[in-house]
Amino acid sequence: MSNQLHNELKKEFQLERMILFSDAVFAIAITLLVIEIKIPEIHEHITDSALLAALGHLAPKFLGFVTSFALVGFYWTVHHRMFGYVTAYDRKILWLNLCFLFFIVLMPFSTGFYGEYSGKEFATEQLKVPMTFYVLNYFFVGLFNYIMWRYISNPAHKLTEPPIDPLTLKLAKARAVVLPLTFLMMIPVAYLVNVVIGSFVPILIPMVMKITKKVITRKHKQLHLSTT
Amino acid sequence: MSNQLHNELKKEFQLERMILFSDAVFAIAITLLVIEIKIPEIHEHITDSALLAALGHLAPKFLGFVTSFALVGFYWTVHHRMFGYVTAYDRKILWLNLCFLFFIVLMPFSTGFYGEYSGKEFATEQLKVPMTFYVLNYFFVGLFNYIMWRYISNPAHKLTEPPIDPLTLKLAKARAVVLPLTFLMMIPVAYLVNVVIGSFVPILIPMVMKITKKVITRKHKQLHLSTT
Amino acid sequence: MSNQLHNELKKEFQLERMILFSDAVFAIAITLLVIEIKIPEIHEHITDSALLAALGHLAPKFLGFVTSFALVGFYWTVHHRMFGYVTAYDRKILWLNLCFLFFIVLMPFSTGFYGEYSGKEFATEQLKVPMTFYVLNYFFVGLFNYIMWRYISNPAHKLTEPPIDPLTLKLAKARAVVLPLTFLMMIPVAYLVNVVIGSFVPILIPMVMKITKKVITRKHKQLHLSTT
Amino acid sequence: MSNQLHNELKKEFQLERMILFSDAVFAIAITLLVIEIKIPEIHEHITDSALLAALGHLAPKFLGFVTSFALVGFYWTVHHRMFGYVTAYDRKILWLNLCFLFFIVLMPFSTGFYGEYSGKEFATEQLKVPMTFYVLNYFFVGLFNYIMWRYISNPAHKLTEPPIDPLTLKLAKARAVVLPLTFLMMIPVAYLVNVVIGSFVPILIPMVMKITKKVITRKHKQLHLSTT
Repeated sequence: MSNQLHNELKKEFQLERMILFSDAVFAIAITLLVIEIKIPEIHEHITDSALLAALGHLAPKFLGFVTSFALVGFYWTVHHRMFGYVTAYDRKILWLNLCFLFFIVLMPFSTGFYGEYSGKEFATEQLKVPMTFYVLNYFFVGLFNYIMWRYISNPAHKLTEPPIDPLTLKLAKARAVVLPLTFLMMIPVAYLVNVVIGSFVPILIPMVMKITKKVITRKHKQLHLSTT
Repeated sequence: MSNQLHNELKKEFQLERMILFSDAVFAIAITLLVIEIKIPEIHEHITDSALLAALGHLAPKFLGFVTSFALVGFYWTVHHRMFGYVTAYDRKILWLNLCFLFFIVLMPFSTGFYGEYSGKEFATEQLKVPMTFYVLNYFFVGLFNYIMWRYISNPAHKLTEPPIDPLTLKLAKARAVVLPLTFLMMIPVAYLVNVVIGSFVPILIPMVMKITKKVITRKHKQLHLSTT
Repeated sequence: MSNQLHNELKKEFQLERMILFSDAVFAIAITLLVIEIKIPEIHEHITDSALLAALGHLAPKFLGFVTSFALVGFYWTVHHRMFGYVTAYDRKILWLNLCFLFFIVLMPFSTGFYGEYSGKEFATEQLKVPMTFYVLNYFFVGLFNYIMWRYISNPAHKLTEPPIDPLTLKLAKARAVVLPLTFLMMIPVAYLVNVVIGSFVPILIPMVMKITKKVITRKHKQLHLSTT
Repeated sequence: MSNQLHNELKKEFQLERMILFSDAVFAIAITLLVIEIKIPEIHEHITDSALLAALGHLAPKFLGFVTSFALVGFYWTVHHRMFGYVTAYDRKILWLNLCFLFFIVLMPFSTGFYGEYSGKEFATEQLKVPMTFYVLNYFFVGLFNYIMWRYISNPAHKLTEPPIDPLTLKLAKARAVVLPLTFLMMIPVAYLVNVVIGSFVPILIPMVMKITKKVITRKHKQLHLSTT
């Protein structure tokens, strides 16, 4: 093998290493919550209805597990897409990635915390603490995701070659910023209106995403037309 | 390195990344149950017979661990074989794979739950809840496995090039559908006849698999003969 | 890329996948025991001497962690060496590897179990159960390690190309068989003589290994001389 | 593929395997502490203020988690940089790496132990045991890191080709030795002066690092001038 090819492969492996390390962290985070779901132990008479009731008590933990798996899984696909464009790395992207992973690793905890206190006290006591924690965690995941999109797409850093197609990049960045902002809206609604209504804010996400896509695409076309 | 070769290698790495991420999830799922097997603590007089008795109490957890390891290991080999054919990826296969992994990650819990309540109350109280949970978990693993075989082998998606040999594919799909269906048979037998008999249904699997293989191979040959 | 090169790379990746999956399992097994070492909680007056005493109580867990780390680490290096020779895979090596990994995953438990009961009752009560469990676990790790060396080096399976150098192979196989057999010697010594003496049997390992190396090398040279 | 290229790729994969195995261990260590942060359970009246208080009680665990994540993350980037230079491996580097990983795996425990007892008793009782444990753990991480830099850069071992640029290497080694030594300074200060003052010693690190860089760079230039 020529020395130059060897060096190129080595550089590529260094980038791949960072990506596969992220994947290991993702994989652990995505499976961590199952450890929290302990097999129900029944100390009195063991019957099917007692077991069913015990499973019922685990429902919030199951919900937390499903949500956590879906959210971490979603951000894994985003990370997968993002690094599909990246062809080099530098010291700063290593650290941005570590910060992003930090909030990914925290997600099982915040989802579990929010899920645990979404029972009847959620409405009667207007519990805002778990939701705030959860929203902030999600917000920081989204924030670092946005910072990474900005950083890797900045031509000055030479991390993506060929550069990402402008429209794709604009959409990715817009999605990365709109998603956590919509989540953040849960907090004012919960504090000023009602926590239960606040908890339904994420329902707006598909609509908000569609509008974002439309606006960005239209703007991009107008810009394209005006320049040609 | 030429740009084209670089792009091909990048695409290939994106696919490999998805596979290695799955492997990390498999690896964590396959080892999770050991955490559940706590080293027995004896508070009274420590003797060999007390330790042996303590190990005996762990027997259902050990059985759960062995079964879980075997089943997750089995599906890992299937995943390994399947992605031996896959040469590209798209957004949908990423998500199908995540759904499949979701039920893989849940397997240690359901196997443990089923194993925990397979003692004497299993027969006397006709406990059907843990078995139902276990069977459903297994069914969904099998279902998503089948959906993935279908999806990757669909020529329209261009994920396997060259295409999988028709007989191999038919056998893989048939096995993927027959296995969870046989497991599903445990439920009617348990509810209508007896849970203990239901728990022995998996014994039929080798036979069912053999018959499936014979039928599929014969049909395939007849089809092949009639077309030529 | 030519189709043939592509196929070769794919096959190689399938082998690498199996290896990297094993590594993930090794990595989890090697770090599992740390979870078992809980940070000591002191409920009365918190002082340095109370903390030191609490650390002292953790000593058997630390010893278990160190031993487990060393043993799993050792078998990782053996696995690393072995698969340095392997250039192909088949269905059976996948399963042999899974069996080997099963006993690797069990090692934190058996080491912890043995370590937990190596206190003063170990000698006074002649506790043989934890040691037997530990020795059997170790024996099976060694056994599957030996079976794998045999399997991959069998020319009929075409898994190592070029074939492993005969002397290297003989030494690897001999080591793989002598190590678990020496461990197994702990059992008759413990049952017929004394558990404490039995627990010192592993001290013989370096000596036994040296003798094995000498004998194998001498035999190999004689054979080589007589054939030429 | 030619046989020679095949062998080169195989050797490279063996090195990559060691690196990816390390990454899996890093990834598990970096996420282990989250398991320790249990979702707070409130048994009396569930209110926002009770939940906030419960989160407050978790503060030392959170701090431990953040510090642990940062330190393990930092050493991951160092490991990443170091193996960016390494192009071959031998038996000894495998074991040095395992020793290094051993102390990485221990870090969540020591950070948690130190964090747990940094409350009010830390100052009133002058608790030195957790800090000593923490400092020693950190010292050994740094020590093995230094040994590895020395080992891989020794031309006799032929592990880095082309050799690392002398100034870069000197800086890496100096940093690897200065960092743990600064940490080690916490112990005499804590024992001879005051634990609280000792706990602030790490604040000096950025300054110490800057001075180290200056001194090494100046010395290197002088040496370079005198030789030319």
